[in-house]
Amino acid sequence: MECNVPTDITFSFSGLALRGGAKGPHADGWGLALYDGRVARTFLEPHPAHASVLARFVRDNPIKTLLAIAHVRKKTRGEPTLANTHPFVRELWGRHFTFAHNGTVKGARDLPLGSFAPIGTTDSEHAFCALLELLRKKFRRYPSRKRDLWEAVARFGGVIGRRGSFNFLLGDGEHLFARCATKLAYLERRAPFSHATLADDDVTMDFSAVTNTTDRVAVVATVPLTRDEVWTQGVPGQMWVFRGGQRRATLASV
Amino acid sequence: MECNVPTDITFSFSGLALRGGAKGPHADGWGLALYDGRVARTFLEPHPAHASVLARFVRDNPIKTLLAIAHVRKKTRGEPTLANTHPFVRELWGRHFTFAHNGTVKGARDLPLGSFAPIGTTDSEHAFCALLELLRKKFRRYPSRKRDLWEAVARFGGVIGRRGSFNFLLGDGEHLFARCATKLAYLERRAPFSHATLADDDVTMDFSAVTNTTDRVAVVATVPLTRDEVWTQGVPGQMWVFRGGQRRATLASV
Repeated sequence: MECNVPTDITFSFSGLALRGGAKGPHADGWGLALYDGRVARTFLEPHPAHASVLARFVRDNPIKTLLAIAHVRKKTRGEPTLANTHPFVRELWGRHFTFAHNGTVKGARDLPLGSFAPIGTTDSEHAFCALLELLRKKFRRYPSRKRDLWEAVARFGGVIGRRGSFNFLLGDGEHLFARCATKLAYLERRAPFSHATLADDDVTMDFSAVTNTTDRVAVVATVPLTRDEVWTQGVPGQMWVFRGGQRRATLASV
Repeated sequence: MECNVPTDITFSFSGLALRGGAKGPHADGWGLALYDGRVARTFLEPHPAHASVLARFVRDNPIKTLLAIAHVRKKTRGEPTLANTHPFVRELWGRHFTFAHNGTVKGARDLPLGSFAPIGTTDSEHAFCALLELLRKKFRRYPSRKRDLWEAVARFGGVIGRRGSFNFLLGDGEHLFARCATKLAYLERRAPFSHATLADDDVTMDFSAVTNTTDRVAVVATVPLTRDEVWTQGVPGQMWVFRGGQRRATLASV
């Protein structure tokens, strides 16, 4: 979720958490990264989200944010441990980068590393460390010309993506990058606000009651989280860039 | 807290949280890092600990760990923001290092950085980044001869400590390093276990009911957390190393 005004992720997270073991097979852990400026705080557990008291606490005590990444895990490589739980976090250029991956990158361990080393055993974390290293080597500091960063993330995402399905969400405190390898969808929620109903539950939210007309919220998910809103499907090999609750660019990422 | 068996930090954290705005002036934020092997999960808030619903959640739903670092902040430099909240976390050699500081390092911004950059504006985070960079430059990977690491942390801690009061706790998932610049105390809790009473409250815990005879727990704090146990006071310019719930070394750190 990426917004132009601090927003709580409760509604979307509730829908996602259902897929964490109740209405979906993603029961090997869950995580949530919530930005406050350049810093992200994370809530992580190597257990199913739907039964987690911590996940319930986060829903009951919503924290407003401009940028959040949430993940429920169905493991392909790596045991269900805390170290293998997405989103992964690293500091680069004095800001947190957070990363969640859906898919499997083959031979990820062959990707060259540098300043960032995996703590766990997933292909996902290794690919994230490799991606950050490519960015670190290209830019000495956070690029002032943002489009340079967007293009680099898309290109390096494409390089790593040749090894397998590399659907990812990457946050840097300013942007949400969303790469589609196989499956991804997004939604821009803006005025006139209406209601929305979770795809996996009978929960309906009336956004017109909790928003101002200038609010914009972009939501990206592997599979649409609501059933009565218009979601845009991603094209494999493309990457979206979101900022201020809007899609700013669609870049080739091959 | 550093232990030889997974232990929950509820009792000690309850005592510390009282100092976070209720029985002490440290009301500018609180944080808790709990290790699970090489990875740490953190709970952080730029608000007083004693009134925090998240701090209460952590107390009500204890997570067992071998190594934890908790901090309540009374700000000297840097605003009470999430980015300025201890403990700070960075990955080095594929493990999380966590760091909490009590004191002020003068001219911290002059300390050379490299692979680690501060996200916030505190002297503490800058000093932590500089300390990690010194370690990273000295060792290509996590040293197999642990005493080399202990001595390096003590030496580099002493170098930075020349600039001001550098009382710190540093965790790496295996050790707890505790440097005394002005004030520090520790306790080894082991059999025969008895009861202990918090220094700042009338809460008493009977450890004999929840422990085995081989359990060992080391607790380090600026000021002793309990009033009926024997705490060892630190000597300025010395650093303790804890592992397996025992003090393993006392090193000069000047």
